[in-house]
Amino acid sequence: MSLLTVGSVAFDAIETPFGKTDKIIGGAGTYIALAAAFHAKNQKIVAVVGDDFPQEMLTLLEEKGVDLEGLQIKQGEKTFFWSGRYHNDMNSRDTLVTELNVLEHFDPIIPEKYQGVDYLMLGNLSPQVQRMVIERLTVRPKLIAMDTMNFWMDIALDELKNTLKLVDVLIINDEEARQLSHEYSLVKAAKVIREMGPKYLIIKKGEHGALLFHHENIFFAPALPLEEVFDPTGAGDTFAGGFMGYIAATDDASFENMKRAIITGSAMASFCVEKFGTERLTEITKEEIEQRVQQFVALANFNF
Amino acid sequence: MSLLTVGSVAFDAIETPFGKTDKIIGGAGTYIALAAAFHAKNQKIVAVVGDDFPQEMLTLLEEKGVDLEGLQIKQGEKTFFWSGRYHNDMNSRDTLVTELNVLEHFDPIIPEKYQGVDYLMLGNLSPQVQRMVIERLTVRPKLIAMDTMNFWMDIALDELKNTLKLVDVLIINDEEARQLSHEYSLVKAAKVIREMGPKYLIIKKGEHGALLFHHENIFFAPALPLEEVFDPTGAGDTFAGGFMGYIAATDDASFENMKRAIITGSAMASFCVEKFGTERLTEITKEEIEQRVQQFVALANFNF
Repeated sequence: MSLLTVGSVAFDAIETPFGKTDKIIGGAGTYIALAAAFHAKNQKIVAVVGDDFPQEMLTLLEEKGVDLEGLQIKQGEKTFFWSGRYHNDMNSRDTLVTELNVLEHFDPIIPEKYQGVDYLMLGNLSPQVQRMVIERLTVRPKLIAMDTMNFWMDIALDELKNTLKLVDVLIINDEEARQLSHEYSLVKAAKVIREMGPKYLIIKKGEHGALLFHHENIFFAPALPLEEVFDPTGAGDTFAGGFMGYIAATDDASFENMKRAIITGSAMASFCVEKFGTERLTEITKEEIEQRVQQFVALANFNF
Repeated sequence: MSLLTVGSVAFDAIETPFGKTDKIIGGAGTYIALAAAFHAKNQKIVAVVGDDFPQEMLTLLEEKGVDLEGLQIKQGEKTFFWSGRYHNDMNSRDTLVTELNVLEHFDPIIPEKYQGVDYLMLGNLSPQVQRMVIERLTVRPKLIAMDTMNFWMDIALDELKNTLKLVDVLIINDEEARQLSHEYSLVKAAKVIREMGPKYLIIKKGEHGALLFHHENIFFAPALPLEEVFDPTGAGDTFAGGFMGYIAATDDASFENMKRAIITGSAMASFCVEKFGTERLTEITKEEIEQRVQQFVALANFNF
C-alpha cells in the first residue's frame, strides 16, 4: 500500500564524543523515507529543499522507490540546516545552529497523483503544516501517524492540540509525553494524551525501549542493548519510518501488527545510531534487517 | 528444592511524596524471604535481629514456611535501623539514619540442618559476611546469587571482588554496574563484570525493566508500567526473592527458566511498590501473582 511521508529534508552538522561532521544530509523526512523504503514499496514524499541540496540523495531516494514529485526545490534558496552537539551520555544535546531557510514559509503542496494515499506519516514539523497536509488530502488515509517535539509544545500548544485531534497515532518521547500531559507516570500521561485525539500513543524511551498504548492495552518493545551509540541523530525518525513503512507494507493497522511494526522500527533505529547521520541506513540490506529483528525476538521472548 | 536466604531483617522509616511511616519492618532478608516464600516451599534464613523485633513478623515468616533456626535474636541488642526519604521522582533517595546495631558484628552461623541446601540467595550485606556464608556451606549449592550495592564498591571493593569470584549470579542496578565496571554501556559493563566471576549478571533498571546477561545471550524483561509508585523500598530485594524463589521451586537454572524467574521477580516487585514497606507482600494471593505474570506476557509478547 502507498505511504506519504512529510518531513524536513535538511543538512545537519553533528558533534558527538566520537567526532564531528561537516554538513551532512539529515532531516526527519529523510530518515523516515529511508527507513520506510525498506518495507513500503510505494512511498511518496512532501518536503522542501533549496537549490543547494545534492542530487545524489534525491537519486538514492528515487532508486529506493520514493516518488519525489512532492519534493519542492526552491531556486535561489537554502536548505534547512541544524547543528548540534551531544553530551557525553549521548542522551542530551545542545542545538548550536538552526537556520530555517526554505522551511520558514513551507507550503506543503500535495501533487494530484498523491490523492488517495493509504497511509500518512507526518514527521516533526510545525503543527500548522502537519494539519494543512491532512486537510488537503481529499480522502482520509487509513492511518495517520505524527511525530512532534517539545519545541512546539512550548510555542504552539493550541495549534498542536488542534492537529492532535486529527491523527490516529502520536509518536513522542517520554519527556515530551510528560510535558504534554503534565503527568509524570507514563500510564497516566498516556490516558491524558489519548483524550486529546490519538487512539494510539507510542512513547519512545531511547535506550529503554518504547511503549504502545491503545485503550487498556500496553505493549512494551525493548531497545537492543548496544556496545556503542555512535550518533543518535535521526534514531527517532528512523523508528517512525520503520514503523509506518511496516504498517503500509503489511496493510494492517491492528494492535497485534503494530507490535511487529514497533519492533521493526526499533530494529531500524538500532542500525541508525551505528554511524553518523544517514550513512548506516543507506548501506544495510534486507537480510541484515531480518537478522536484527530476530535479535529482538531472542531478546524479548519468553514462555510462561 | 530448598533455598537459603541471607540478608538483613530490620526496621525502616520511610518518607515518600505520599506520606511517611514510623518504624516499620524492612530489610533485604525480609523482602527476599516474603517474595520467595510464594514459590519456594522449603526456605531457610540466616539473619540477626535484636530483642526489639516483633514476634508477629517471625510468626508470619514461619507460617509461610520459612525455617527460622538460622535467625539469631540478640538479647539486649537492637535491630538494624535505616531511615530514608525519596525525592519527588521516586528514583533517588537520601539516607537519613543508619544504625547498624546487631549487624555490626553479625556472624552468619549456619545451622547444621541447613547444610546441603540447594540454592543460596545472598541479600545485600558486607561482602565479607556473604563470603563467610559460602565458605561455611560444606556442599556448594546448585546456584548462588547475590545482591550488593555501591556502598560496598566505595569502601570494600577488594573484598567484594573476592566474593564475586564465588557466585553464579550477580544482581545489581544499572548505576552499580557502571560503577563496578567503569563502563557506561551496559553491554560492555556486563562483559567486564562477568569476567570478575558471575556467569550470569542481572542488571535492574527500575521502571525500565531488567537485563539478564549470560555468554552472548541477553534477555530483557520489561517493568510493568504503573500509574503510581507508592514506595520503592524493597522492590529490588523483592525482585531477587521472586527470582530465586522461582528457580528453587522449579529446580531449573537454565537460561530459559531464568527468563521466567526474572518475569516472576518483576511481577513480585510490581506488587511491592503499591504500598509502604512489606505491607502489600503480606496480603497478595497466588491468584494475583498468576494474573500479574500474565500481564507481563501481554505486555512483552509479540509474534514475528
